[in-house]
Amino acid sequence: MSEPATLPSASQPFRHPVRVYWEDTDAGGVVFYANYLKFFERARTEWLRSVGISQQTLREATGAIFVVTDTTVRYRQSARLDDALDITVVVEELRPASMRLSQQAWRAGHLLCEGTIRIGCVDAASLRPCRIPSQITTLFQ
Amino acid sequence: MSEPATLPSASQPFRHPVRVYWEDTDAGGVVFYANYLKFFERARTEWLRSVGISQQTLREATGAIFVVTDTTVRYRQSARLDDALDITVVVEELRPASMRLSQQAWRAGHLLCEGTIRIGCVDAASLRPCRIPSQITTLFQ
Amino acid sequence: MSEPATLPSASQPFRHPVRVYWEDTDAGGVVFYANYLKFFERARTEWLRSVGISQQTLREATGAIFVVTDTTVRYRQSARLDDALDITVVVEELRPASMRLSQQAWRAGHLLCEGTIRIGCVDAASLRPCRIPSQITTLFQ
Amino acid sequence: MSEPATLPSASQPFRHPVRVYWEDTDAGGVVFYANYLKFFERARTEWLRSVGISQQTLREATGAIFVVTDTTVRYRQSARLDDALDITVVVEELRPASMRLSQQAWRAGHLLCEGTIRIGCVDAASLRPCRIPSQITTLFQ
Repeated sequence: MSEPATLPSASQPFRHPVRVYWEDTDAGGVVFYANYLKFFERARTEWLRSVGISQQTLREATGAIFVVTDTTVRYRQSARLDDALDITVVVEELRPASMRLSQQAWRAGHLLCEGTIRIGCVDAASLRPCRIPSQITTLFQ
Repeated sequence: MSEPATLPSASQPFRHPVRVYWEDTDAGGVVFYANYLKFFERARTEWLRSVGISQQTLREATGAIFVVTDTTVRYRQSARLDDALDITVVVEELRPASMRLSQQAWRAGHLLCEGTIRIGCVDAASLRPCRIPSQITTLFQ
Repeated sequence: MSEPATLPSASQPFRHPVRVYWEDTDAGGVVFYANYLKFFERARTEWLRSVGISQQTLREATGAIFVVTDTTVRYRQSARLDDALDITVVVEELRPASMRLSQQAWRAGHLLCEGTIRIGCVDAASLRPCRIPSQITTLFQ
Repeated sequence: MSEPATLPSASQPFRHPVRVYWEDTDAGGVVFYANYLKFFERARTEWLRSVGISQQTLREATGAIFVVTDTTVRYRQSARLDDALDITVVVEELRPASMRLSQQAWRAGHLLCEGTIRIGCVDAASLRPCRIPSQITTLFQ
């Protein structure tokens, strides 16, 4: 469904816009820190979609789903209600059954939050590791 | 797993304690209104558990899961971080494939929020309505 | 900041697209029902933004925030991971200190969920009702 | 409000029980990974409460709130609906304006997830770092 692509890199990250709504904030008046993991995941999903991969379709076709195995996040500045954020995705490492991504949240040129996320590919039924389906790896040569 | 029981009623509601954490609040400084639906569901789950029913076990044994089909909630007062709430469950109507529950959130004698929740029993695979498993209905005579 | 507008009506509802991500789903494989209230709120926020109103700015300028006082939601069909939804907003009633909105979630012409939401305007500090700021009401004649 | 205490340590961690509800799960059938950060925070809050500290009261009395500045989480095994978890808290480092905690999620003797969380103390209004209030540090000698 999509042409060969290159992995989003530090020089050319994938970008996805996220708006901050009431649901994202907490009583400190800022975005609840755990929610950046949601923002990061939306961006990863949209990155995959941008190269023609739907996770729901992938699961139905191959039985494989991606699961997060490690997250490291540093919070630098806060985001507030109505803020318009940009979430980036950079692939740092692509392995047979996992990948490591670097992600950041930006607001108008200010870095708010950054993290490293490791994703593993697992069989949805057994939750055991499996190879990333070739329809994904072949997208990136 | 449990002896015959009576349905929790207006005179004898089931009660479940809920503590308000950061995750539950929003930038208004209060509990985000959608989260009362989570509190209500925790109380329903604990009510079922109190009569010996685990939804995960029920699903594995019968293929049935409960889904919410209608909610009506009125918000009267706000809850804040660290508040200790009591969530009540009263069964208002028990039908072959659904039930209607009345639920309330209380803090120290003050009614914060109240709602009516209709739950349907559906087959987990097809999501089509099915009879509430007899292991549940026979609990209540 | 914006020209006079008309209220979104049944014949001309405001529409906001929402994508379903992992964060929105539950172990039933579908969107967790409480999350439609989040989707509805995003659409209301974007409707206000479309006529030039930022809730964060509104709060700083007037001290007023909108709070949800009543919700009635009927769930008809389920949404799944990756689904593209359209959330609509229709103003059914505009009063001095509150408004009642009708909202729906659609997927490719199928109505999934619909609700009525009553919003009150309150002072952020005291949480007591106040008049909807004139910069909002004058937008709609 | 509380007697001098010792910090929860590796040999004597603080423990807080958490039950898995529908709200915590995702379409993979397991607990959504970001939600472990919520579970960890509930345990930290209950640990503070166990030594007499309410964050809401702390904020009103001193203007200080705790914010998370760094999180590192490794996901080992999945939790499912109805699972009864134990969340632990161990203080690894206590500094004037921050602390580093080690936290784990357990189910029946199995380690599901573990993380390191750094918490900073900030002024709620300015969000700038401030010393941890002495009513907290003096609790621990």
